Amino acid sequence: MEVENRYLTVKHHIHGLPSRLDFELRSAPLTLTIPPGSEDVIVKNLFVSIDPYQINRMKVHNSSQKTADFARQLHPGQRIDSFGVGRVVASGNAEFKKDELVVGLLGWEEYTAVRPGTMLTKIDSNMDFPLSYHVSILGSSGLTAYAGFYEVCDPKEGEKVFVSAACGSVGHLVGQFAKQSGCYVVGCAGSKKKEKLGFDDAFNYKEETDLRSALKRYFPDGIDIYFDNVGAEMLEAAVANMNAFGRVALCGAISQYTDAGKQAAPDMLDIIYKRITIRGFLAYDHLSIYHDFVSATSDHIRHGRMQSLEDVSHGLESVPSAFAGLFRGDNVGKKLVQLADI
Amino acid sequence: MEVENRYLTVKHHIHGLPSRLDFELRSAPLTLTIPPGSEDVIVKNLFVSIDPYQINRMKVHNSSQKTADFARQLHPGQRIDSFGVGRVVASGNAEFKKDELVVGLLGWEEYTAVRPGTMLTKIDSNMDFPLSYHVSILGSSGLTAYAGFYEVCDPKEGEKVFVSAACGSVGHLVGQFAKQSGCYVVGCAGSKKKEKLGFDDAFNYKEETDLRSALKRYFPDGIDIYFDNVGAEMLEAAVANMNAFGRVALCGAISQYTDAGKQAAPDMLDIIYKRITIRGFLAYDHLSIYHDFVSATSDHIRHGRMQSLEDVSHGLESVPSAFAGLFRGDNVGKKLVQLADI
Repeated sequence: MEVENRYLTVKHHIHGLPSRLDFELRSAPLTLTIPPGSEDVIVKNLFVSIDPYQINRMKVHNSSQKTADFARQLHPGQRIDSFGVGRVVASGNAEFKKDELVVGLLGWEEYTAVRPGTMLTKIDSNMDFPLSYHVSILGSSGLTAYAGFYEVCDPKEGEKVFVSAACGSVGHLVGQFAKQSGCYVVGCAGSKKKEKLGFDDAFNYKEETDLRSALKRYFPDGIDIYFDNVGAEMLEAAVANMNAFGRVALCGAISQYTDAGKQAAPDMLDIIYKRITIRGFLAYDHLSIYHDFVSATSDHIRHGRMQSLEDVSHGLESVPSAFAGLFRGDNVGKKLVQLADI
Repeated sequence: MEVENRYLTVKHHIHGLPSRLDFELRSAPLTLTIPPGSEDVIVKNLFVSIDPYQINRMKVHNSSQKTADFARQLHPGQRIDSFGVGRVVASGNAEFKKDELVVGLLGWEEYTAVRPGTMLTKIDSNMDFPLSYHVSILGSSGLTAYAGFYEVCDPKEGEKVFVSAACGSVGHLVGQFAKQSGCYVVGCAGSKKKEKLGFDDAFNYKEETDLRSALKRYFPDGIDIYFDNVGAEMLEAAVANMNAFGRVALCGAISQYTDAGKQAAPDMLDIIYKRITIRGFLAYDHLSIYHDFVSATSDHIRHGRMQSLEDVSHGLESVPSAFAGLFRGDNVGKKLVQLADI
């Protein structure tokens, strides 16, 4: 059987803020059977992840493009791979059978022909969670939050934790993990509508004229851990308010993604004298703790101690505006697009 | 017996580059006997250390002043404490006897009355090294280099190491430790006269118009470890040339000390995608490895595998110009002033 597979692509490399008009919906015929000898797995995509890091792949040049495979450059016309959840339609790989649910590197398209060696995992049919959780709280966002917080930030009970983009896909989970570990947590986001999620406090950075004073007010005893999704002035202000031996996990720098002039220049004297550690990380270096992560997080969800905040749009055509909205802070929680009924 | 103890002080808080005219030589009477009940130790200072970090203490305000005791603010008129080597003249402390040689927090003055609780250690009389070594290669500079390199940079054989201010008190030792550990080492300094000290290569940053390209040339395979004494553009260029999982030890930021506008803004996307760690440190947090450091370093010196590069001026009155010269890059090696004959 052959279908006309619709997929999204960028019309041109993107500079500055993305708009839905930067994208184009194309289609190409796809045979939903596997030729003999092929180990491809054809997946019908159900949910795809909409993540800020994709913008770095769409630029003419960006340092991220050289280092991590999932972050390599995207050229106009190319399909856009992204994390997602789907159902196996046909498989040349003995590990995957027709109709099984899978999570992995799929794409902003209706079907993905997953090549051997691409990240793809079966979803345990005993896991009674909503499917979307496997790309949010139990997927790449969750692992990013968990690995970044536990492996990079090395938290201790009672420590003061600041999370930026606290309503983003990763931020809202970091804050919840931190609360589970007995930390004091303040998050900041770009809107008042965004909730506290059980954090000790939260503020809207757009209402603050001076971020340093704001942080001083929210952390009179200083910050021990800063989980950074934002970069720029927020990182500078956090470093200025940090305690001795503070730790900064650099997860993202969204304010810099669309404005290269917004480079953080934290005070290096602060970093030296306060013996601060700033560490960039990617979740996929921490796959060794994947099972611990899933087990601990499932347990938190089952006991009502954590929740997944998701912001779901519907239909492949809604992907471009969902993506552009990330950079305006439209999303509350993990941004997903549901491409088909489950 | 009473002497007129000459000491240096700043005339005013210092802004920008220091000059010898910012200092004043004063004197005050000092009784060279210990009153009953006092645990003071009076030391005749022989060598005092001239270090860039002192400038941060002399400013009206600097973030360093709040964190580390040895870095607390200095006010006009106050004596200036600094590391040094001296001979005990009188002691109210049973641990120290007259005529013993000591190393510790002394001062830019002829005699220091060392209060109980101040860092002070007897020099092992079996150690047959020049006395100056105890404030350079075997003293605070050596420990800074050793702790920063081994504890912060976590070097592996064959790794590529870049050291800035490579002829400074710490830099020239870091490069030598790195060579001892089988690393490839390139240093940069502000003059061609400065030697290679057994490094694999060295360059004069003043002759380079583009630091990023320079580092690309010296490290075609990228930098694994950057030991930063400089900050600003050098840190940015090093991060741009760093390999995945690179480590930056922030030891100093001399280019920022006298020009607050020179804040480094390394590319945070590089730091994230290359999973770089940037860590500020102070040697005195690593006193637990002090004995390992002294033992390993003494051994290197005795076997001719390491050398101490020292730049010695003479007489208390030469301290201000020696200090000002640090910021012009005048010194080759550890800058010391010898105050009295041994």
